[in-house]
Amino acid sequence: MDIATRVWNRRWKIDPIVRSLIDTDFYKLLMCQSIFRNKPDTNVTFSLINRTKSIRLAELVDEGELREQLDHIRSLSLSRGENTWLRGNTFYGKRQMFRPDFMEWFEGLRLPDYHLEKRDGQYELTFEGSWPEVMLWEIPALAVLMELRGRAVLGDMRKFELQVLYARAMTKLWGKVEKLRDIKDLQIADFGTRRRHSYLWQDWAVQAMMEGLGEKFVGTSNCLIAMRRDIEAIGTNAHELPMVYSALAETDEDLRQAPYKVLADWHDEHDGNLRMILPDTYGTKGFLDAAPDWLAGWTGIRVDSGDPAQGAETAIKWWQSRGEDPQEKRVIFSDGLDVEKIRELQAQFANRVRVSFGWGTLLTNDFRGLVPNDALAPFSLVCKAVSANGRPTVKLSDNPLKAMGPTGEIERYKRVFHLGEQKALDVVV
Amino acid sequence: MDIATRVWNRRWKIDPIVRSLIDTDFYKLLMCQSIFRNKPDTNVTFSLINRTKSIRLAELVDEGELREQLDHIRSLSLSRGENTWLRGNTFYGKRQMFRPDFMEWFEGLRLPDYHLEKRDGQYELTFEGSWPEVMLWEIPALAVLMELRGRAVLGDMRKFELQVLYARAMTKLWGKVEKLRDIKDLQIADFGTRRRHSYLWQDWAVQAMMEGLGEKFVGTSNCLIAMRRDIEAIGTNAHELPMVYSALAETDEDLRQAPYKVLADWHDEHDGNLRMILPDTYGTKGFLDAAPDWLAGWTGIRVDSGDPAQGAETAIKWWQSRGEDPQEKRVIFSDGLDVEKIRELQAQFANRVRVSFGWGTLLTNDFRGLVPNDALAPFSLVCKAVSANGRPTVKLSDNPLKAMGPTGEIERYKRVFHLGEQKALDVVV
Repeated sequence: MDIATRVWNRRWKIDPIVRSLIDTDFYKLLMCQSIFRNKPDTNVTFSLINRTKSIRLAELVDEGELREQLDHIRSLSLSRGENTWLRGNTFYGKRQMFRPDFMEWFEGLRLPDYHLEKRDGQYELTFEGSWPEVMLWEIPALAVLMELRGRAVLGDMRKFELQVLYARAMTKLWGKVEKLRDIKDLQIADFGTRRRHSYLWQDWAVQAMMEGLGEKFVGTSNCLIAMRRDIEAIGTNAHELPMVYSALAETDEDLRQAPYKVLADWHDEHDGNLRMILPDTYGTKGFLDAAPDWLAGWTGIRVDSGDPAQGAETAIKWWQSRGEDPQEKRVIFSDGLDVEKIRELQAQFANRVRVSFGWGTLLTNDFRGLVPNDALAPFSLVCKAVSANGRPTVKLSDNPLKAMGPTGEIERYKRVFHLGEQKALDVVV
Repeated sequence: MDIATRVWNRRWKIDPIVRSLIDTDFYKLLMCQSIFRNKPDTNVTFSLINRTKSIRLAELVDEGELREQLDHIRSLSLSRGENTWLRGNTFYGKRQMFRPDFMEWFEGLRLPDYHLEKRDGQYELTFEGSWPEVMLWEIPALAVLMELRGRAVLGDMRKFELQVLYARAMTKLWGKVEKLRDIKDLQIADFGTRRRHSYLWQDWAVQAMMEGLGEKFVGTSNCLIAMRRDIEAIGTNAHELPMVYSALAETDEDLRQAPYKVLADWHDEHDGNLRMILPDTYGTKGFLDAAPDWLAGWTGIRVDSGDPAQGAETAIKWWQSRGEDPQEKRVIFSDGLDVEKIRELQAQFANRVRVSFGWGTLLTNDFRGLVPNDALAPFSLVCKAVSANGRPTVKLSDNPLKAMGPTGEIERYKRVFHLGEQKALDVVV
């Protein structure tokens, strides 16, 4: 390192974890634009939820450091180069994906304030305000918590141990890439921003995928990495849209229609590979059974909870029942993936549908077994919309362990969406 | 990297493998001083011998590159800092280990010319001239050939593959260090200069040993690394002394006495831990049986060929037969070591003698299994004195596969030194 760099580095009071507003998932920006157009005046609260209670984050992570990192994120604004890239780049084959009015708003955006306190060894971290602003906190907040927890563990290690740790982690990750390389017709993307070990590690993981998989690696959900590595930004939409639309519903009938309304709005804005159904918010089977026919014309489905093979089978049967050819449809698997599961799902479905994978935590944060007490094992941290205009949100999903919301509301949603028996599956990450 | 460094690097026509005259084993300098005093006018020929014929070095390594590297070594002279370190440092607890007359000669030294040609897919590389000058070629010549062979393999790899290769090699080496850490009372030194993967890798291996083993790591044979890392330089003497002394012997009786004459000269110059017997040049058992009594008073023995446990048992029995207490003696194992063998020998001998280890090739060049076709597996390359004043040298050792010299002379030496049956052992490195 040269002397000037060393002196420069000394000026930083902190080592910022998130250094750009587009160090976030591409689908957040797509959804943000959709919300900006369709529901700009909604007031929401997002809240951090650590589903792995055994990891006592408030004991591991210093509150002052956490505040410094969050404050730094609030100081960020879109840079000129980022602005140019968002406006000028082609996403999913389309120019000007982001409309001028949205971009103008985004240029002026600073993230709103946060509320932080400790309770029972955990952090209560909430964000409240205008939906299109607040929703952009999700990914950076998660990335900050994940990385501060990692830094707390790494802070006790000596320089040499760190060098060996990363050598081992690289060896492990590259071993996975080498296994994936042998899977015929694989299509896989990085979906690991939110639970990554760190930005640099995610960036290395992306390079490993580019180098090792070539055409089989189709892109990353991380906009900043997509921009810097000149690859595709990947992602469509997430549970927050049906969750908030549903919370806003006045009647049971409105509630029943809310998830379809989300996709109707999306249908107006997007076509092709962006028309991807996320059916599991209130149970995949009920959602598909009651879906309007135009939805069967969509390009594919993302399977994000429950048994993934069963989710894909349900989708295939549904397409057949609506007279669609499943071989023309895409199934994206994005929940709890690792190499063996990917290989298995590809073998099972490659000849029946178009298969692709959004690989998250075990791509960008698999440090399992590399430090004593497995202190870097990934854990299940989410940041979700918990209320909209003062009304609680609910998520059921295809795994009862992932359900969230007030008990009474959960029961109501189960009734409205005809949710039957569900099988509980361990939530690894 | 800063711009100036990058521009500077462009000026190098080659990337020199050996950049210092003291990037060599400490015992070469000790022996050089001894030769400079006792046999300065001897004319010797050193020759490179690749015992692993399946590795066709002349097909792997470009002759032009080899010449450039050797020429670069001929351009080296002792730097001021190196000079100061050799004169001022304490070696084996002693100041002024290197005498002023020797240092004055060493300051003016440039390595003599070499002779290089290709034959049967191998390089014939020989050095001929004054013994104290020519003998200093041994280590740099070996290091250059080892590293050029490595570069030939690495040259086809992409940047990312290289990164992963070194991550894997670090992981492997650190795994060994972690296993060694658990061995009680271990004393181990790096003896891996001659067959190292590269200087930087040897330097990393030394740091790994320092960091991981603490007091159990007692130093390195490499003078340059010892100087830069501020650790002990380790080493005593080698086969070249008895081999050349023996070649110079006029009669069978002179020949029989030659190996003891070597140690008598050494006895005059050194004491304490530098009085280390290397008994295997013409068979350990015969050497010890016929040894003068004063040799039994020496500090220890180095076991460098044959079955190491048997070598140590032979030494223990010999000390006992001479009324010495083996518990006061040191046994240094330095042949074909890896973690399991080290653990085994330590367990077997720790309570009976003082044990230490000089770990070579599998410390500084264990890239086995890390590239296709195992193209970086270590191989058995040596650079030996093959004649002295026009007479061939002979080595028998405790492993017949390591014997060298003209057949007639080998038979004569076997007779003179009463060498009986020997067991052949695979030469790994």
